[in-house]
Amino acid sequence: MSAKEDEVCYYPIGVIHSPYKRCEETPIQGRFNRGVEGRVELFPQYEEGLKDIEGFSHIILLYSFHLSTSHPLSVIPFRDDEPHGVFATRSPRRPNNIGMSMVELTGREGNILHFLGVDVVDGTPLLDIKPYVPSFDESGEVRIGWLTDKLGDREDEKYS
Amino acid sequence: MSAKEDEVCYYPIGVIHSPYKRCEETPIQGRFNRGVEGRVELFPQYEEGLKDIEGFSHIILLYSFHLSTSHPLSVIPFRDDEPHGVFATRSPRRPNNIGMSMVELTGREGNILHFLGVDVVDGTPLLDIKPYVPSFDESGEVRIGWLTDKLGDREDEKYS
Repeated sequence: MSAKEDEVCYYPIGVIHSPYKRCEETPIQGRFNRGVEGRVELFPQYEEGLKDIEGFSHIILLYSFHLSTSHPLSVIPFRDDEPHGVFATRSPRRPNNIGMSMVELTGREGNILHFLGVDVVDGTPLLDIKPYVPSFDESGEVRIGWLTDKLGDREDEKYS
Repeated sequence: MSAKEDEVCYYPIGVIHSPYKRCEETPIQGRFNRGVEGRVELFPQYEEGLKDIEGFSHIILLYSFHLSTSHPLSVIPFRDDEPHGVFATRSPRRPNNIGMSMVELTGREGNILHFLGVDVVDGTPLLDIKPYVPSFDESGEVRIGWLTDKLGDREDEKYS
């Protein structure tokens, strides 16, 4: 099988609603803003795909950082003053602007999912939802490179 | 801001190489095949984006399940004989066929990343690489719904 360089296109399956109306208001990561409520509005034609999702306490949202207009390969993240390769950061400005957030699912009403830990701007286009499964998604001992000693549980951190 | 239903298009940034030449050979999740080596070949024009990634022991690969041709909303996963909504499963057949794997980074040579825990077919188009950061990506106590009691550490599990 040869390398595939063909364009890959997706249609959003829904929208993420959030109290943040501007990028500058969003927290660095939802895990540091666990108490903030968000809402997934899945487009109704996909509702059948939510069956049994209520059994999971946490889900992973994949979405488009649709307001990111630049795609630098080197970025100076909020937590540092040194440049790092974009793939060693969680910057929303990346070659393919796919965002990923693990959030706590608190309820479902039909095609609406309520969750805690929102970290995206209101109106973010949703691309996928996956159940969070520790034995797939968690590791044991890890190294976190340049982020070592740069992470506090700083609830008030923003991108701005 | 209104709901965005516009198509979102990405160009692969590289290719994932794996010992699995056919979908039927791939393990259910790389976490159950931790010892199997894979290789990311990032297209050379993106190499600058890898700076400092070596500091991270684990990375998250986002890719296209490019061989998935159907997109059912209800699926009967390998681990069960009951249908579940696709968003409550990790099935590769999903409305937007984005795959996600957390793997152990073992080395880098220029634009090549060596890793353990590959669970995709050889030639899979890579869309993004993110550093794995437990305080962003791990949760504490979780519920895993229909998957409860269905997960063993079964190294030999395959999709077939």
